[in-house]
Amino acid sequence: MPTPERFVSLVVQKYGGSSVADAESIKRVARRIVGTKQSGVEVAVVVSAMGDTTDDLLDLAQQVSPSPAGREMDMLLTAGERISMALLAMAIYDQGEEARSYTGSQAGMLTTSSHGRAQIIDVTPGRLRTALDENAIPVLAGFQGVSPDTKDVTTLGRGGSDTTAVALAAALGADVCEIYTDVDGVFTSDPRSVPKASKLTAVTYEEMLELAAAGAKVLHIRCVEYARRQNLPIHVRSSFSDREGTWVLSSEAVAELVERGEMEEPIISGVAHDLTEAKLTVVGVPDKPGEAAEIFEVISTVGANLDMIVQNVSTDGRTDITLTLSGSDADAAMAALREAQPAIGFTDILFDPGIAKVSLVGAGMRRHPGVSATFFRALAEAGINVEMISTSEIRISVVCRAEDAPRATAAVHSAFGLDSDETAIVYAGTGR
Amino acid sequence: MPTPERFVSLVVQKYGGSSVADAESIKRVARRIVGTKQSGVEVAVVVSAMGDTTDDLLDLAQQVSPSPAGREMDMLLTAGERISMALLAMAIYDQGEEARSYTGSQAGMLTTSSHGRAQIIDVTPGRLRTALDENAIPVLAGFQGVSPDTKDVTTLGRGGSDTTAVALAAALGADVCEIYTDVDGVFTSDPRSVPKASKLTAVTYEEMLELAAAGAKVLHIRCVEYARRQNLPIHVRSSFSDREGTWVLSSEAVAELVERGEMEEPIISGVAHDLTEAKLTVVGVPDKPGEAAEIFEVISTVGANLDMIVQNVSTDGRTDITLTLSGSDADAAMAALREAQPAIGFTDILFDPGIAKVSLVGAGMRRHPGVSATFFRALAEAGINVEMISTSEIRISVVCRAEDAPRATAAVHSAFGLDSDETAIVYAGTGR
Repeated sequence: MPTPERFVSLVVQKYGGSSVADAESIKRVARRIVGTKQSGVEVAVVVSAMGDTTDDLLDLAQQVSPSPAGREMDMLLTAGERISMALLAMAIYDQGEEARSYTGSQAGMLTTSSHGRAQIIDVTPGRLRTALDENAIPVLAGFQGVSPDTKDVTTLGRGGSDTTAVALAAALGADVCEIYTDVDGVFTSDPRSVPKASKLTAVTYEEMLELAAAGAKVLHIRCVEYARRQNLPIHVRSSFSDREGTWVLSSEAVAELVERGEMEEPIISGVAHDLTEAKLTVVGVPDKPGEAAEIFEVISTVGANLDMIVQNVSTDGRTDITLTLSGSDADAAMAALREAQPAIGFTDILFDPGIAKVSLVGAGMRRHPGVSATFFRALAEAGINVEMISTSEIRISVVCRAEDAPRATAAVHSAFGLDSDETAIVYAGTGR
Repeated sequence: MPTPERFVSLVVQKYGGSSVADAESIKRVARRIVGTKQSGVEVAVVVSAMGDTTDDLLDLAQQVSPSPAGREMDMLLTAGERISMALLAMAIYDQGEEARSYTGSQAGMLTTSSHGRAQIIDVTPGRLRTALDENAIPVLAGFQGVSPDTKDVTTLGRGGSDTTAVALAAALGADVCEIYTDVDGVFTSDPRSVPKASKLTAVTYEEMLELAAAGAKVLHIRCVEYARRQNLPIHVRSSFSDREGTWVLSSEAVAELVERGEMEEPIISGVAHDLTEAKLTVVGVPDKPGEAAEIFEVISTVGANLDMIVQNVSTDGRTDITLTLSGSDADAAMAALREAQPAIGFTDILFDPGIAKVSLVGAGMRRHPGVSATFFRALAEAGINVEMISTSEIRISVVCRAEDAPRATAAVHSAFGLDSDETAIVYAGTGR
């Protein structure tokens, strides 16, 4: 799978905001795209808004209205990709190849009508296929689509451009979807906070999903899920260098790479931490069937997604339920719980925003005993107090104090021998 | 026609870039729109890009490519209105009325496929009509459309938002199209250079066309032509004040206003000057039939529009032809002429970019003798050397040195008694 040039005939390349932050970057990206095309590979491009454009537009909206209408917010934000895609198409022309930019609507990116968090329901890329057949390079706006019900413009939410790229690659029958970012691939930890993080040759879709859920920002969960369903290889790499990046593949494809000796058998694929969650403890819940369900129903009414849930053993007929959820959902969840307090009959709610989740992910951990022991010994030796524990087949997560997270991550990273001799390069800020 | 509230049931309001230059301006405009709606009048809005957005985007394009593809340039520039219209819709919501923004394509603004200078061929405003019927305020992006042939996004060129507004007003059967700008209406001269210019109560379409062709920037020629064909009243006014502006009407409607005593009978509607033209003299043209035609054919091949043409009397079988054209077309025209020089057989080309055209416009001049005499006496007394003269039924234009133009304009303005006692207010820079 590394050295993919042998069999690739059509590639979708996605460039994030940091890769097209200014005119110079756009020209550099255009040269790379034209280079790919002139090497004899058909290429379609997906592009995000330039650098800080999205944040600037959000800021303008805030100045105009405290709670902007979703339809208008999507209309506003999609201007960002309109600008970057047109400029990128111009720059490609300037390098001697024909390019044509398309909005999500023009490209047949059909979505649900939920503004700000629409889901792709179908892709009908007829105009892009025609462009390819006419030897032109189609440049598609990431992150956006159109609802066939309302005919309105929609956005997929943050990280949506990755999903656009994978969906387009699947619809065009591309051999690979290349996701260009500001690091050289997927690392064993975020190279921004762990400079000794090692680049992975390949990870499975399942590992990548766990890493994304654990706080790794390199790929969005939805995009990985889409690729897994389509069994579409993703190649995460940097637009700032020519190095081979990281392949995201099926577990069978990864096993084949190991068999061919192209990579070592992986046990641990990474250590991630997430500072965006908060902890809620519902104290003194009556210990009888259905009480927990009521609490989770109340929280779901405000659209908050729960992550970890721990119930302590019951004492004197009452129990405490602790859960973590996105910090931005915490206020709404607490308000809903307080309203339901008389009906449910718990005694108090404790709120703790100062937490971090540290997770160890690796498909190999189910075959290798002792992984948990090594993990907890490393945390203990670093003096980290573990507040909650949660596990899946290929992941162990703990909750600790937010300020301990970098130290905990570094200790676990070292304990599993993941430290690299080289320092990982971060080329720029992150895009969306 | 002044005091139009009596009979207006549907109005199209167009706001230029200077009226929506920042968040505060957008909120101010939203309050005005909501005020109109809540007074019981149906309202549809056309909006330009915010302040300098278009120039900023042009600048970015220039950085990426020296000669950007027209299709991509239109894709890029239309991002400007996308931003302003979404923000304006949000601001209207915030004032308590529903608003829905529409791109030219969504609004059925069908154009030719000439990128950067497309012409409107049809308007099918079904979605906007539905929005109005559902009690919502439609907000349409000015300056843009879609080609039904190529399905590509197009722009109408500078000044195009005015044309969008008039075309929409005609298609919706509006009673009036209000063009909001940064001055209180149409003045007897540009208040930026003649502070004593007087505001006109009304002008005819024909006078407005002559004023626009003579260099007045308040309304674009195409928009006035469109309104004349549809006999649609235009009301030019300021978004920064509540004053009555200037009505642009048929000559019958203006005559009716005079009869009803709502305005004095107008003789002169204004004095305009234009610094954008250059003068070319083709020297020593063989004085035989067809030579002039050949010269004009050569110039038309580069797409340059000629304005004034003067041919001097013939001496020794040769003559000189002097013409004015847009300064930006001069280089191309001269290159084409030089190439054709051997075939045509003229002896030289003289080029003079330092000229101005000063024009006096007024439908009353055909009924009032002595207008020419007053005009030329005023110029003579101001010591202005007249280099060329051209006239239409309702206009006299002269060419003079560029540096003399402000003095010439002021002298003529005073000579016809157009000076106002008040100083005209200019509220901001111009939009498109």
